[in-house]
Amino acid sequence: MIITKPTLLFDKKRAARNLFRMAGKAKKHNLKFRPHFKTHQSAEVGELFKDYGINSITVSSVTMAEYFANHGWKDILIAFPVNILEINSINRLASKIKLSLLVESVETVEFLSEKLNANVLIYIKIDCGYHRTGVAWNNNTLLTSILSSITSTHYLKAVGFLTHSGQTYHAKNSEEVLKIHNDSITKLKELKSKYSTPGGELIVSVGDTPSCSVAESFPGVDEIRPGNFIFYDVMQSQIGSCLTKDIAVGLAVPVVAKHPERNEIIVYGGAVHLSKDFGMNDDGTKNFGLVAKYENGGWGEPLEETFVSKLSQEHGTIHSTEETINEINVGDVVVVLPYHSCLTVDAMRYLYSTDGKEISTYLSC
Amino acid sequence: MIITKPTLLFDKKRAARNLFRMAGKAKKHNLKFRPHFKTHQSAEVGELFKDYGINSITVSSVTMAEYFANHGWKDILIAFPVNILEINSINRLASKIKLSLLVESVETVEFLSEKLNANVLIYIKIDCGYHRTGVAWNNNTLLTSILSSITSTHYLKAVGFLTHSGQTYHAKNSEEVLKIHNDSITKLKELKSKYSTPGGELIVSVGDTPSCSVAESFPGVDEIRPGNFIFYDVMQSQIGSCLTKDIAVGLAVPVVAKHPERNEIIVYGGAVHLSKDFGMNDDGTKNFGLVAKYENGGWGEPLEETFVSKLSQEHGTIHSTEETINEINVGDVVVVLPYHSCLTVDAMRYLYSTDGKEISTYLSC
Repeated sequence: MIITKPTLLFDKKRAARNLFRMAGKAKKHNLKFRPHFKTHQSAEVGELFKDYGINSITVSSVTMAEYFANHGWKDILIAFPVNILEINSINRLASKIKLSLLVESVETVEFLSEKLNANVLIYIKIDCGYHRTGVAWNNNTLLTSILSSITSTHYLKAVGFLTHSGQTYHAKNSEEVLKIHNDSITKLKELKSKYSTPGGELIVSVGDTPSCSVAESFPGVDEIRPGNFIFYDVMQSQIGSCLTKDIAVGLAVPVVAKHPERNEIIVYGGAVHLSKDFGMNDDGTKNFGLVAKYENGGWGEPLEETFVSKLSQEHGTIHSTEETINEINVGDVVVVLPYHSCLTVDAMRYLYSTDGKEISTYLSC
Repeated sequence: MIITKPTLLFDKKRAARNLFRMAGKAKKHNLKFRPHFKTHQSAEVGELFKDYGINSITVSSVTMAEYFANHGWKDILIAFPVNILEINSINRLASKIKLSLLVESVETVEFLSEKLNANVLIYIKIDCGYHRTGVAWNNNTLLTSILSSITSTHYLKAVGFLTHSGQTYHAKNSEEVLKIHNDSITKLKELKSKYSTPGGELIVSVGDTPSCSVAESFPGVDEIRPGNFIFYDVMQSQIGSCLTKDIAVGLAVPVVAKHPERNEIIVYGGAVHLSKDFGMNDDGTKNFGLVAKYENGGWGEPLEETFVSKLSQEHGTIHSTEETINEINVGDVVVVLPYHSCLTVDAMRYLYSTDGKEISTYLSC
């Protein structure tokens, strides 16, 4: 396709390969696969999952749940602490689909008990050490209170314990990921053995892409919810969750200026396209993405020693070697592999398959 | 208005006051005021500028230029190195309005000379020390080449030298801003005295909000192009360009969880709403925004010792004092003053005035 401005390319073959591997791993370990759809945010990309018999999904907002419910998904978990201000939308959804919600306080259970008018399933958010949200895994007093408050309601039913071990996003390598993973699932297994409800055993649901990519052992885990793995990104390749050849989205950007005196080129592609998320190179410089040549509607392996070093609103600065800079000219198109694909997809709102087909997302106009 | 999810509030009175001050400063110093519209990105907000007789504007992309041209603006500068891949759109615009473009190479001038079929005005981008884009201010060889190549074309006319002293965004206080400002305008004044074209004297155009907010002296400057000043943000208040009471946009967000044991609350409002841009607090912690109470459809002064300390895709973590955390409950709405308003507006795509009116931007559906 002809690129004239920042365009998010989608390599369906890579995504299909990523999905094949993750679905295979879930099957091998007898895990329910409830993929998170907040990365691709797209009903069309979601269709790929149906080939694996997947009919339960995870999303991160009520709005996203509504979108996927409107596209035929009937079993949706909103893996975000219940926003009680959206109770009307939650009730509408709960009357139409099998809806699961996430709670971490008795107050929210009581609110739901009073305001819900349809059945919902409840996951209890457990903090295994990430310290973003959730009940501390060893806070037995609170866990007992939440579970007993759920039992006394009409429309709520506890199904299990859920964690997101987001610490793995700060891991330096797969050994660190595995250590966090093993620590989290040991804690959750303990909870599972300790608690049950009148409805039976409670399940354990874990989620982060690094753990699900790297781990080969899931004792006590019933369900996995990775999302990012469908596209992966530079962050995941740095952590060791994937190889750069697995990254399935790339932002095609026009080159608008060259500064060979400092080995830089300037592209039309900035923070409003890629997001301002970044990692660090070994030498302490920032890395907002890797860079590949644009070829055959897609891209190949990233160029050596080449990365997005700065981003402002619409400008991206690519730092590279003298040799590579010499090969690239104003008016060329290069492809930036995003540091964080979830945020790039959210910013761009449309994907284009490498054969030029437009794919919308839940935020597309 | 009733807030149920992240909603970008717009305080029109504050924006009008910011505009009144900047327009007054331009008038006082006899500067042409060509405001950058990439911050608000909105035809409706743009209307406020007409009260000051402003009819020349700046934008950062061809798409944005098309949007404002379609909303009646007839004199638009695209202050971004010409993206030659958009030549068809550039030609369409040039045939309809007075279009100004930014160049920094002979190659781009030659491309335009060959492909343009309507008149455009050309600003030469000068790098006075920011080192993002532009011709180094003392690269006389290249400046002479660019100017003479423009002179030999049919549709191009050089109008002046343009800089964006983005270094001011890293300034710690207004003294540092002034130092950068004075250095830049001294360099540009020198260029102005050195070069002229058959069409007469070349103008000097400067742009950044910190300089335009802080400086009270603009010797040799003909035009200013600040944009952020209309809304300001936490970054600008840290630099010293504004007070927090001047910040004219705030993201209203629902509180979804509390963690008093670490003085944190969790809000539904994350990187996809605010952007991941951040500054540093004095103690070295990250600051993604300040926080105020939601009151009367708007907000007051930021809460003491309270800031957004972490952001993930949809979650925001607010760190505060024990006292403030005790006063805020799940289901409440608080207002986050963004660290970087341009990126927040771009992410949110709609503004809501404090009397509940929806205001669209160029990216709204």
